Amino acid sequence: MEFTISQIAAILRGEIEGNGQEKVKSIGKIEDAQRGSVTFLSNPKYENYIYSTQASAVIVHRDFVATKPVQATLIRVADPYTSFTRLLEEYDKITSYIKVGVEEPSYIAVGTAVGQNVYRGAFSYIGANTTLGNNVKVYPHAYIGDNVAIGDNCIIYSGVKIYANTVMGQNCILHSGVVIGSDGFGFAPQADGTYKKIPQLGNVILGDHVEIGANTVVDCATMGSTKIDSGVKLDNLIQIAHNVQIGSNTVIASQTGISGSTKVGKNCVIAGQVGLVGHIEIGDRVTLAAKTGLAKSVKKEGAVKFGYPAMDHKDYLKCHAVFRNLPELRDRLNELEKKY
Amino acid sequence: MEFTISQIAAILRGEIEGNGQEKVKSIGKIEDAQRGSVTFLSNPKYENYIYSTQASAVIVHRDFVATKPVQATLIRVADPYTSFTRLLEEYDKITSYIKVGVEEPSYIAVGTAVGQNVYRGAFSYIGANTTLGNNVKVYPHAYIGDNVAIGDNCIIYSGVKIYANTVMGQNCILHSGVVIGSDGFGFAPQADGTYKKIPQLGNVILGDHVEIGANTVVDCATMGSTKIDSGVKLDNLIQIAHNVQIGSNTVIASQTGISGSTKVGKNCVIAGQVGLVGHIEIGDRVTLAAKTGLAKSVKKEGAVKFGYPAMDHKDYLKCHAVFRNLPELRDRLNELEKKY
Amino acid sequence: MEFTISQIAAILRGEIEGNGQEKVKSIGKIEDAQRGSVTFLSNPKYENYIYSTQASAVIVHRDFVATKPVQATLIRVADPYTSFTRLLEEYDKITSYIKVGVEEPSYIAVGTAVGQNVYRGAFSYIGANTTLGNNVKVYPHAYIGDNVAIGDNCIIYSGVKIYANTVMGQNCILHSGVVIGSDGFGFAPQADGTYKKIPQLGNVILGDHVEIGANTVVDCATMGSTKIDSGVKLDNLIQIAHNVQIGSNTVIASQTGISGSTKVGKNCVIAGQVGLVGHIEIGDRVTLAAKTGLAKSVKKEGAVKFGYPAMDHKDYLKCHAVFRNLPELRDRLNELEKKY
Repeated sequence: MEFTISQIAAILRGEIEGNGQEKVKSIGKIEDAQRGSVTFLSNPKYENYIYSTQASAVIVHRDFVATKPVQATLIRVADPYTSFTRLLEEYDKITSYIKVGVEEPSYIAVGTAVGQNVYRGAFSYIGANTTLGNNVKVYPHAYIGDNVAIGDNCIIYSGVKIYANTVMGQNCILHSGVVIGSDGFGFAPQADGTYKKIPQLGNVILGDHVEIGANTVVDCATMGSTKIDSGVKLDNLIQIAHNVQIGSNTVIASQTGISGSTKVGKNCVIAGQVGLVGHIEIGDRVTLAAKTGLAKSVKKEGAVKFGYPAMDHKDYLKCHAVFRNLPELRDRLNELEKKY
Repeated sequence: MEFTISQIAAILRGEIEGNGQEKVKSIGKIEDAQRGSVTFLSNPKYENYIYSTQASAVIVHRDFVATKPVQATLIRVADPYTSFTRLLEEYDKITSYIKVGVEEPSYIAVGTAVGQNVYRGAFSYIGANTTLGNNVKVYPHAYIGDNVAIGDNCIIYSGVKIYANTVMGQNCILHSGVVIGSDGFGFAPQADGTYKKIPQLGNVILGDHVEIGANTVVDCATMGSTKIDSGVKLDNLIQIAHNVQIGSNTVIASQTGISGSTKVGKNCVIAGQVGLVGHIEIGDRVTLAAKTGLAKSVKKEGAVKFGYPAMDHKDYLKCHAVFRNLPELRDRLNELEKKY
Repeated sequence: MEFTISQIAAILRGEIEGNGQEKVKSIGKIEDAQRGSVTFLSNPKYENYIYSTQASAVIVHRDFVATKPVQATLIRVADPYTSFTRLLEEYDKITSYIKVGVEEPSYIAVGTAVGQNVYRGAFSYIGANTTLGNNVKVYPHAYIGDNVAIGDNCIIYSGVKIYANTVMGQNCILHSGVVIGSDGFGFAPQADGTYKKIPQLGNVILGDHVEIGANTVVDCATMGSTKIDSGVKLDNLIQIAHNVQIGSNTVIASQTGISGSTKVGKNCVIAGQVGLVGHIEIGDRVTLAAKTGLAKSVKKEGAVKFGYPAMDHKDYLKCHAVFRNLPELRDRLNELEKKY
């Protein structure tokens, strides 16, 4: 896709200084943008780059005054960062609207209701009694089981696996390798040391605007539903066990695991490689630092926890500061004992 | 699928109190069951819910005496929990027997032996010289390489990838995204700083009744076999490296990793996010707490380990109790030094 | 595939002692090799196994002197370990060259350039404007998006997902479930508590001889490129976030996560379950022990770090040695205070 710099300036309502007819086809950072790309200058500490950048066009502040010669064409706007973000969104919108229609071979069971402007990639599979909303994109090798409901504008990337009975709101994005609705890890120990599988008959319910990163797994509930509320963002390789509930607008970083039946509040921030034991409750706006292990409920809104077993963040740092000097502490104790 | 309450009562040999002709089509927990579902009351502390539940039917103890009016139809049995579990299993059996036959397009190489009552979903792939037992279910997008043997009643969910030469017993369940037999991580360092790949020519052998959670990986052996014995249950996103051996009926929770050539005993319980170094040995009935890092063998049967580097569970907790008070400990030491 | 022992001896330029006409079809370790397989004896501490092994042939040192009767045919060579490794490579080369040609149905968009001797498995998907080099193998259910470039001799195993605009060098191996180029985890917090997606418009660039383990994820850059340099080896279930850069010949073990924009040097060794925060820099030849959590840059070449927050490896071990005795330390302090 190619645009002239004039076309971009028109979208951003900016003023051109230089050659508006040059074509750009990519977007880059000022420090490594190449010829044929557009970039921006917002933070003054990057100003030096504008004199050496290979970019064809740079979005700058209306009042920017160059102190050396600039090769690139300038697009002058009121707020370069906002304009640039706007450009990213426009670019993304255009490229993502390319996929529409059906590639063959694809599989769609009888009794399936498909909305308008849907993309179904080659080798995609859609089960019986499933409904897809308008503008849904189902990439190649995506599997959508029976009795699944998917709202408008959802993007299901290649290789996503959605088990039967899943319910998904609107505007969700599921990245490659995501598994939704696999069996919870439930087994009843038997007298002879073996384990008997407890059937996992529940489902998963996702709200609106949920985004789930590559290879993350959300197990179905034993009974009832595992629930991921609207606005939740999950990074890659996360484990969400059966019957977990996650409140709206909570974000969770990569490789974190939440054990069965635990409830996480709204607007929480959970860092990477965190582990939460099962059957606990986390309040709203709670923060858990990276690699924290949480074995007890944290109901206090806004709490910040760290370490394993988890402590208040500040307390943990104080303890760790002493930990780093433990050999010295021990030596001083030895010394005191000798002196006595 | 719909049943009348009378039909359910007949399966459970229970007595009906109320409208046996009402139809139910789902199963739920008493606190959130909806009209059209059946639930149960076993634990007396949940009794209050029976007076407000929306469920159409509740399985209760033969001698249950209501203290307020109950809307739901009752099914009286000797042991409500056991009856309910029985119902879950029946339901699961019925729903899981739906998938039989072949959906097209699917791929099956020449020289493949397929048993009776097999399901091969659309876009499933079965390689050369592979055998599938009776009642095996191969969901869409499952890949089964060459020279693989899969026993009776195994369920291979959508998107499972099984490399060549894998051997799998009976009644195994592999969830979406599971990878069996990928190359072990073996590289020989060269003088120039590069690494040369060591060919990974072994395979993976799974026993009977092995269940493996979504996106878990089991690497093939360098030579010989990586072995997962009968009755082992692996949760999601677990890493099993090359030449690992796991004894029968051991259960491992999500996101744990076991490094190359380590042997784990029978009936062990390994919690989530645990890491085991390579080339060590774990005895039978050993328990490893969540996030434990194990760098040495634990041969003692029944040992319980925690922390990293791992210690006896009780010892670790005692040390951590002091860790939580380290700043105070340091202050007291400072005080003593001053006094001296 | 079957070879006579004479054929193997000819490849290794070894001398036969015994029946050269016996056929072998597999390769094994001396302690558990079966009839019909070839093994080797290099380390003298394994000598006892040569008198009991079931293997049909054993590769031994030219000067090996048996002290008891040996059933197996011997192949005498100058360096048994090197000869055996050579055999593994030959075996691997032969078996891996089997896959060539196209299995149907497969999907290939218009405008795609495919080299010589390519394998495209059934249900593989290749997008528009994509190029595949010579000898590339694309296994079933692999997805290669639009505008992707894949160099000669790459192996893309079943179920790998490669997003649009990825660039890959020569001789790379991607194992099942690998995801390359999924969106980075970038969201801008809004005043109402929701998050707005930041479009992820960059790509991923892999060098030559990169190997990536099963279910590992490499996110695309927000802008620019996430870069994995030549010779890097990634194990299974690893997370590489947006805009990360990894220097050549660095090896990373399973379940490690590297956060956004972090730069890792050349020839580093990062163990399993390690976590690196975003926007830091790691020098060349740095080692990070298992489960380390790194929150600050480590620019010193050759540094070895351990623990969380990470410390110098030796210092951490010293501190942990005192940690293990903290209850005793506390008791001694109590005692001193009483005495005073």
